[in-house]
Amino acid sequence: MTPIIQLGLGGVGRALVRQMLAVAPTIRRRYGIDLRYTALVDSRGALAGDPALTDDQIQTVLTAKAAGHHIDSLAHAITDRHWLELLPATMAIVVDVTAAGSHAAPLAAAISAGHRVVLANKRPLCESYELFAALTERGATRYEATVGAGLPVIGVLQSLIDSGDEVRAIEAALSGTLGFLMSELERGVGFADAVRTAHQLGYTEPDPRDDLSGADVARKALILARTCGMHLPPDAVIAEPLFPATLKEISVTEFLQRLEEAEHEVMNRLQVASANGKVLRYITRISPDNGVEVGLRELPTDHPLASLRGPDNMISFTTNRYADRPLVVRGPGAGVEVTAAGVLSDIIATAREL
Amino acid sequence: MTPIIQLGLGGVGRALVRQMLAVAPTIRRRYGIDLRYTALVDSRGALAGDPALTDDQIQTVLTAKAAGHHIDSLAHAITDRHWLELLPATMAIVVDVTAAGSHAAPLAAAISAGHRVVLANKRPLCESYELFAALTERGATRYEATVGAGLPVIGVLQSLIDSGDEVRAIEAALSGTLGFLMSELERGVGFADAVRTAHQLGYTEPDPRDDLSGADVARKALILARTCGMHLPPDAVIAEPLFPATLKEISVTEFLQRLEEAEHEVMNRLQVASANGKVLRYITRISPDNGVEVGLRELPTDHPLASLRGPDNMISFTTNRYADRPLVVRGPGAGVEVTAAGVLSDIIATAREL
Repeated sequence: MTPIIQLGLGGVGRALVRQMLAVAPTIRRRYGIDLRYTALVDSRGALAGDPALTDDQIQTVLTAKAAGHHIDSLAHAITDRHWLELLPATMAIVVDVTAAGSHAAPLAAAISAGHRVVLANKRPLCESYELFAALTERGATRYEATVGAGLPVIGVLQSLIDSGDEVRAIEAALSGTLGFLMSELERGVGFADAVRTAHQLGYTEPDPRDDLSGADVARKALILARTCGMHLPPDAVIAEPLFPATLKEISVTEFLQRLEEAEHEVMNRLQVASANGKVLRYITRISPDNGVEVGLRELPTDHPLASLRGPDNMISFTTNRYADRPLVVRGPGAGVEVTAAGVLSDIIATAREL
Repeated sequence: MTPIIQLGLGGVGRALVRQMLAVAPTIRRRYGIDLRYTALVDSRGALAGDPALTDDQIQTVLTAKAAGHHIDSLAHAITDRHWLELLPATMAIVVDVTAAGSHAAPLAAAISAGHRVVLANKRPLCESYELFAALTERGATRYEATVGAGLPVIGVLQSLIDSGDEVRAIEAALSGTLGFLMSELERGVGFADAVRTAHQLGYTEPDPRDDLSGADVARKALILARTCGMHLPPDAVIAEPLFPATLKEISVTEFLQRLEEAEHEVMNRLQVASANGKVLRYITRISPDNGVEVGLRELPTDHPLASLRGPDNMISFTTNRYADRPLVVRGPGAGVEVTAAGVLSDIIATAREL
């Protein structure tokens, strides 16, 4: 059996558990791999199996979490030990589908002990470069779902590099929310109204500045750049925010009211781009020679990213072998089910190696 | 060490050998995998190592093949044994980069003996469904390069299915040659002239009917459909040819002279599509419910495949999870270097499992 310890039981975490239960029998038949949860862990504790959790125990966890309870509310919950202590003596897969900022070092410790890691959580890969190297050494960590959710991005990039290709440039639209906003602006909607609508529809984070700051895109850009082999420190990627510093420290309610103060700058950029016969996109541009940029950029109308409408992600790889015409991947780059599916694919690929 | 036997030393085969020699030290360092050729095989013989070929021996083979010689012209060549007899007792990877039609059964025998297979050759997967099942059982064969060359297509499809998603439709443009031709027609070039130009530029096979018949696209469609789980016999996919049956049996020279006889039908279809406000594309459409189609189809201008210009391939997956907006992959789907890179990635992925 392949033991799995899953950290995180939010939306993605619960979707992953459901998908795992659904496919485990097929995977056993198809590849002879027996995927088993040995522990499910949330922010307050863990439920561990002996050696594996039963389907009934797993269902109990799902039910409790869906009702808003933590694992420490369950019988047999373990609250006095760190998840590292729950790892079995045989090789296990640790799956991190939290958004926690404190997991990089313990995950690296798990890898040192011979275990493998699968991440949807971007933060462990965005600490010091040394921690990134420790996590990814010898392919010990898979992290497809950190960029573009279920879209094939990290795996594609690693295959290109492993086969001896060299990346010249990656150009990408990595935020569905910002993509949606730019399309609204192109339809003639004002920036403040577009943000308010997106917020009401639940397309943004509860605090829309978490999207508009570009910080999440910057993390994805850092992960892509480091995967390309660029030895970057955590603060190397600075995203251009779509609101002024004066709106940074106020409440969400006040921010939504004062959005007009962010409007002029963005609309002005849009008009200038349009007057130049170009389109405006919030993009990531990575080139080993020129570094990493994250922000609003004018693009010619025949640029691959210019064709993008709405919330799709798009990633374009220009390499020595894909020099004249890039390799392009496009599709929904967020969502609970596709993110969980990306994680599950990584778990299966890892289990096939053990 | 991971022993590799490579069948085929044409353009793709030689590019693969060169790429392998270039990346092997990095792969050894990065993943602890020692990729070694134990034999190189062409249509007339084999050169086998003891246990592995030296870099000098491999260079000798490359030099001989580049000069148009066969392996049986080399010292120590083996001509009296089938490559199956060269397989080592330990698990090896058999790589088929030929276009041979006779390899399916021996490759299945290699798998029965515990070996693994990587294919750029489409034909072994296009024999009986039973042979396809025998080759792909338990993921024993990887075949990314059979569809879209180095583009991520087969791996993406398998990941979707393994994670419990269900394919509703695959729509794809899988022929760079036919894509180039359709773009020429849209520029106003006549069909006969466009084919003659493509032939002169070396964009078509030596006999352009090998492209215009759609037979190669039909093979890719069959592989995709079978990968989706459709139990199809070899003759299940019938491609629409872009020339009349009267031009089927004549010489290439005569065919190129009489191309005008194929022109009317295609140009008429283009005009009808245009009058309907649509575009004409040579596409593959696969849906588990409605079967497989390969041929000229009218598409609305906002269809993902309508945006395609020139020789790029494009593959659009609509699934239960990618229901509203598809997952789309686009880029060059042919070429010696990118095809070899697709094969090499499959070899590395396989070696990581051994």
